[in-house]
Amino acid sequence: MVSGEVIFVLGGAASGKSAFAETLFSDAQTPVYIASAQAFDAEMRAKIDRHIARRGSKWRTVEAPLDAAGAIEALGSADVCLFDCATLWLSNHLLSETYLAAEQARLLAAIRSCPARLVVVSNEVGMGVVPDNALARRFREAQGRLNIELATAADTVVHVVAGIPRVLKGALA
Amino acid sequence: MVSGEVIFVLGGAASGKSAFAETLFSDAQTPVYIASAQAFDAEMRAKIDRHIARRGSKWRTVEAPLDAAGAIEALGSADVCLFDCATLWLSNHLLSETYLAAEQARLLAAIRSCPARLVVVSNEVGMGVVPDNALARRFREAQGRLNIELATAADTVVHVVAGIPRVLKGALA
Amino acid sequence: MVSGEVIFVLGGAASGKSAFAETLFSDAQTPVYIASAQAFDAEMRAKIDRHIARRGSKWRTVEAPLDAAGAIEALGSADVCLFDCATLWLSNHLLSETYLAAEQARLLAAIRSCPARLVVVSNEVGMGVVPDNALARRFREAQGRLNIELATAADTVVHVVAGIPRVLKGALA
Repeated sequence: MVSGEVIFVLGGAASGKSAFAETLFSDAQTPVYIASAQAFDAEMRAKIDRHIARRGSKWRTVEAPLDAAGAIEALGSADVCLFDCATLWLSNHLLSETYLAAEQARLLAAIRSCPARLVVVSNEVGMGVVPDNALARRFREAQGRLNIELATAADTVVHVVAGIPRVLKGALA
Repeated sequence: MVSGEVIFVLGGAASGKSAFAETLFSDAQTPVYIASAQAFDAEMRAKIDRHIARRGSKWRTVEAPLDAAGAIEALGSADVCLFDCATLWLSNHLLSETYLAAEQARLLAAIRSCPARLVVVSNEVGMGVVPDNALARRFREAQGRLNIELATAADTVVHVVAGIPRVLKGALA
Repeated sequence: MVSGEVIFVLGGAASGKSAFAETLFSDAQTPVYIASAQAFDAEMRAKIDRHIARRGSKWRTVEAPLDAAGAIEALGSADVCLFDCATLWLSNHLLSETYLAAEQARLLAAIRSCPARLVVVSNEVGMGVVPDNALARRFREAQGRLNIELATAADTVVHVVAGIPRVLKGALA
């Protein structure tokens, strides 16, 4: 990764996308982790704890369930950063009924102009049947559009299937 | 695209598959749009209107929620046509309780013998968990089988993920 | 396929993954079929019967809804075997409330040390929206982790989309 480079890592649930994204930081001294997860319940708490344990102590964690844009704007050119993940960020905004379009434009502008090396993780959620409820359909549409914008903003796009990364755009160093 | 060529564009919901398919018609003078969408509610109406606005005025639209085969049979060798999409066509037939097997055989025969250049768009719906209700499971199975048949009939198959096209069969000119 | 080789075939529902997997056995004299399906209802019975009819009479079927590990341990170096599929095996164990972690370790050890040529089929289930119910979410997580382990254990990994195989790891002979 080079300064200012953006890598977008996309994959299904439990596809190994976060584990793959973390391998991109094996040489980093003190990487920044922008965390969008909120521990509403025991299931999510357990998942967050598994991820924290896997990452280890060298990471500096910034909790940003809503203001990922602000956290990215605060990065300098010496930073290397993992934003995990855009799906929870989107979900938090949909549930908070914030003005998503403006927030998304701000997030994408922050990503595009970020001087740090940045890896963004997101979920593929559009390859199942149409969901029964309207919020899930709205989420699915919003996630699809966000993923397209993230892929457009990124230098490199990687799709992870069963733990195996495939480059869809650009190239991994 | 050459006369008689069939391109099959597959992707998840909001994956950018329709937008990609439309880029294949940038040089076409008066392309034909075979529309399978039916505006049952405001959500679908809004989506149809977004797509119409994006395509612009050079397109001639043929509404064919059920009889896509007839619309394709009516094409001549000078036509270039986008059929968007096989998923709504399938859904309309499942909801109408028409005799799907015969309709599908007719549609595929029309696609195979079509003298026009034809792009067919469809959804990938089989990569989520098993749906709760039987109709959704039946739809998922039927869509999977239809996609296999469309991919077999096509000269070129493109899978769109996060707006990025990947050729699975044949080649894009 | 060579003795001891493991090929992992992953795909969505009705993606053509089983039909593709069976093409790998076209030259086999008496292949072994390890079946994990259980005919609880008419829908599943019909699906099992379709698969049996497609495979034809040269196959020797071993019913192993839970003990796939035992069935794989019983294979010799002269055998060629199709295990279809890891998704139903996982589902059977989740519904039976067996100790999944131990069973999964045993299954993976059996696959890794198997002297036969072995093809394992599994479903991609993680690319839809988050399921409503907790069991479905647990299943989705467990399937994702199992698929990563199967892909790691395999020499060759193939993802099937609309009947089209794409090699993600290794190479098909």
